[in-house]
Amino acid sequence: MDASRVIADLRELDRRTGGPGGARRVCWTEEWVAAREFLRELVADLPVEVSVDTGGNLWAESPGEREELVVVGSHLDSVPGGGWLDGALGVMAAVEVLRLARSPARSVALVDWADEEGARFGRSLLGSSAFAGTLDPSAVSDLTDAAGGRLPEVLAEHGVQVGAMASAGEGRRGRVAAYLELHIEQGPVLEAEGLACGAVLGTVGVERHRVVFEGRAAHAGSTPMDRRADAGVAAARTISGLQEIAQRHGGVCTAGRLDLEPGIVTAVPGRGELLVDQRHLDPEALEAMLTAARDLWSSAAAGEGCTVSAQRIWGIEPLPFHDGLIGAARAACRAAAGSERELPSGALHDASELARIVPTAMIFSSSKDGLSHAPGEDTPEKDLTAALEAFGALAKGVIAGGVPSRRTRRP
Amino acid sequence: MDASRVIADLRELDRRTGGPGGARRVCWTEEWVAAREFLRELVADLPVEVSVDTGGNLWAESPGEREELVVVGSHLDSVPGGGWLDGALGVMAAVEVLRLARSPARSVALVDWADEEGARFGRSLLGSSAFAGTLDPSAVSDLTDAAGGRLPEVLAEHGVQVGAMASAGEGRRGRVAAYLELHIEQGPVLEAEGLACGAVLGTVGVERHRVVFEGRAAHAGSTPMDRRADAGVAAARTISGLQEIAQRHGGVCTAGRLDLEPGIVTAVPGRGELLVDQRHLDPEALEAMLTAARDLWSSAAAGEGCTVSAQRIWGIEPLPFHDGLIGAARAACRAAAGSERELPSGALHDASELARIVPTAMIFSSSKDGLSHAPGEDTPEKDLTAALEAFGALAKGVIAGGVPSRRTRRP
Repeated sequence: MDASRVIADLRELDRRTGGPGGARRVCWTEEWVAAREFLRELVADLPVEVSVDTGGNLWAESPGEREELVVVGSHLDSVPGGGWLDGALGVMAAVEVLRLARSPARSVALVDWADEEGARFGRSLLGSSAFAGTLDPSAVSDLTDAAGGRLPEVLAEHGVQVGAMASAGEGRRGRVAAYLELHIEQGPVLEAEGLACGAVLGTVGVERHRVVFEGRAAHAGSTPMDRRADAGVAAARTISGLQEIAQRHGGVCTAGRLDLEPGIVTAVPGRGELLVDQRHLDPEALEAMLTAARDLWSSAAAGEGCTVSAQRIWGIEPLPFHDGLIGAARAACRAAAGSERELPSGALHDASELARIVPTAMIFSSSKDGLSHAPGEDTPEKDLTAALEAFGALAKGVIAGGVPSRRTRRP
Repeated sequence: MDASRVIADLRELDRRTGGPGGARRVCWTEEWVAAREFLRELVADLPVEVSVDTGGNLWAESPGEREELVVVGSHLDSVPGGGWLDGALGVMAAVEVLRLARSPARSVALVDWADEEGARFGRSLLGSSAFAGTLDPSAVSDLTDAAGGRLPEVLAEHGVQVGAMASAGEGRRGRVAAYLELHIEQGPVLEAEGLACGAVLGTVGVERHRVVFEGRAAHAGSTPMDRRADAGVAAARTISGLQEIAQRHGGVCTAGRLDLEPGIVTAVPGRGELLVDQRHLDPEALEAMLTAARDLWSSAAAGEGCTVSAQRIWGIEPLPFHDGLIGAARAACRAAAGSERELPSGALHDASELARIVPTAMIFSSSKDGLSHAPGEDTPEKDLTAALEAFGALAKGVIAGGVPSRRTRRP
């Protein structure tokens, strides 16, 4: 794979739809349409058939000796003020895969998933979930953007009928032999270890809760310590305990927000509302972390004479990738960059949806300072080059018929 | 002392300027003026001279055999939606003291301090600090109320010139032999121990800080625990550590508010702003608590890879009351209610300002559920009766010439 050609395409995309203020390719906007126009230009001279499915996903398919399809891609859409590589890296790498796939054994398709970020309507993985058959159109029909625009009407302007999205995978889903995606890590792990790229094990499962502690608001001066029911202390003991739970189980736990009431310097907090996010690649470990967290906030509340209730805000199961493809990705990274690192993805990707139905793998490039969703997002060019070469080798091997024909993800 | 007469006066005051929605006697409003009108009615037939000093404090003075003056009182002003007893109890008790002080040995004066609560302009103890000589008029001249009204203009409508407030104590301050105040506890201590009243040791010193932890905001999914600098965890460890510091030193520490940024469920907090309030009656213990707190938040920050800075928002030294008068108050409580309890006041009172310059004592009545500054504030009638009887006995003894002629507070 000619990494310099991919990087040149990425720079041109950034020139057209990004710049110093960051990427402006929010899905279902003119800038995003312009990005897709550029993609169409890039594949115009290749022996591919370009189409858009009913989920709004753009495909460029190159027929091979066999019907079965190797899908490579990612997403062109970005958050407002996003990075130049998030999503775009995987799409431009897929263009290069198409360029090199002359007379392939398996058929090859580039895909640009629609609305991975959910930046306008708040629903991420929209196009890929439509393709995977997990999108419930009625669950998104009432979504509106900040200006009050309704999702069905905005999508219709782009030729997508919400009612027809659930059939996006029809006629193609059954042919997919593998899905491969290159993406930036969006985290600090590879950079910290001096590695250019790594093989992704899957996307972690998430348990997200709102935890409410109820104590007794009281005067900060006239209420002795032994007469208090301090919801803030109960929440604080939970926050520090969550850190220990994550360390013990090898996952992550985050308390991102705490609202104390009445929230003034002269009052013992009578109520504390804590937002808790827990993630792990292993479903049993995730379950164990959640159980430990429930025990933690119950005992922290009881210890302060408070009560506690927890409401599950959102969750998703871990979505591990395909064992054989992970191994192939690892080998490709070793060959291109000399590194053996496997790592979970703490963020969701279109690959999460694909992993539900087809053998799936991802390669991550390093991320400078672990930064993403910001104009300063970047990856050193030598790391980009190594990651692109690894991804090219992985795709080449799979297109040639290597690794799994097994259609299920690893158990 | 006829407690039932005092309680009847309090109920009439509540009928005129309170009710189910709570007291409405916010200082420098018509309701407060109406409360003072009622007070003037109550003392109209007594052999007293009524006047208002340049600090806006209302005096009703009854000459005795000696010039030296025993001052009894509190404040009629309230917070919006306040309780029927907070402040008013001490003023109505003082009316009863005047009624009973016929041909007193020492002269006796009732005082209704202006603007104890600071509910309208945010500056509490306004009138009593003017009398005590600790008010800096230039520090309050720029204060405005919620409607934009300027303090100097509003006070002028009530006959008070800000520039002249500092002379409020002239001609009277030097004559004061003792200051005595009856007030509700506004805390849960007496009620919890089944006591009607107690002798107050003084008002606690306060150290109030804004503590800012700076870490690194990061993605809650893609940032491993060992790559984080979580300002929320540093703040949480500080909150729970403060509780232990307070318990160890016998004071109180409160963390009333924590603001995390970016403050979303998917981000490790990169910044945390914590409000900390510490109080103790003993100046050395207060200093030790503050030193321990500084060590705590420094080590909590360092342990999480964060930095920390603390800014002192406000503070006041402990203001202990007069030893001899505390003993007399304690004896009066024992005689009236059979209890020996001494306790510090966690809240400030006008007595704090008086304690700086003259021998001072307070008696607290119990507070139902420790509640104050709310319409539900209350004290059982039998506790009110006992507290009033104790206060009456204390005042009677001091007016008769008992306890200190020593003019300084206890060292």
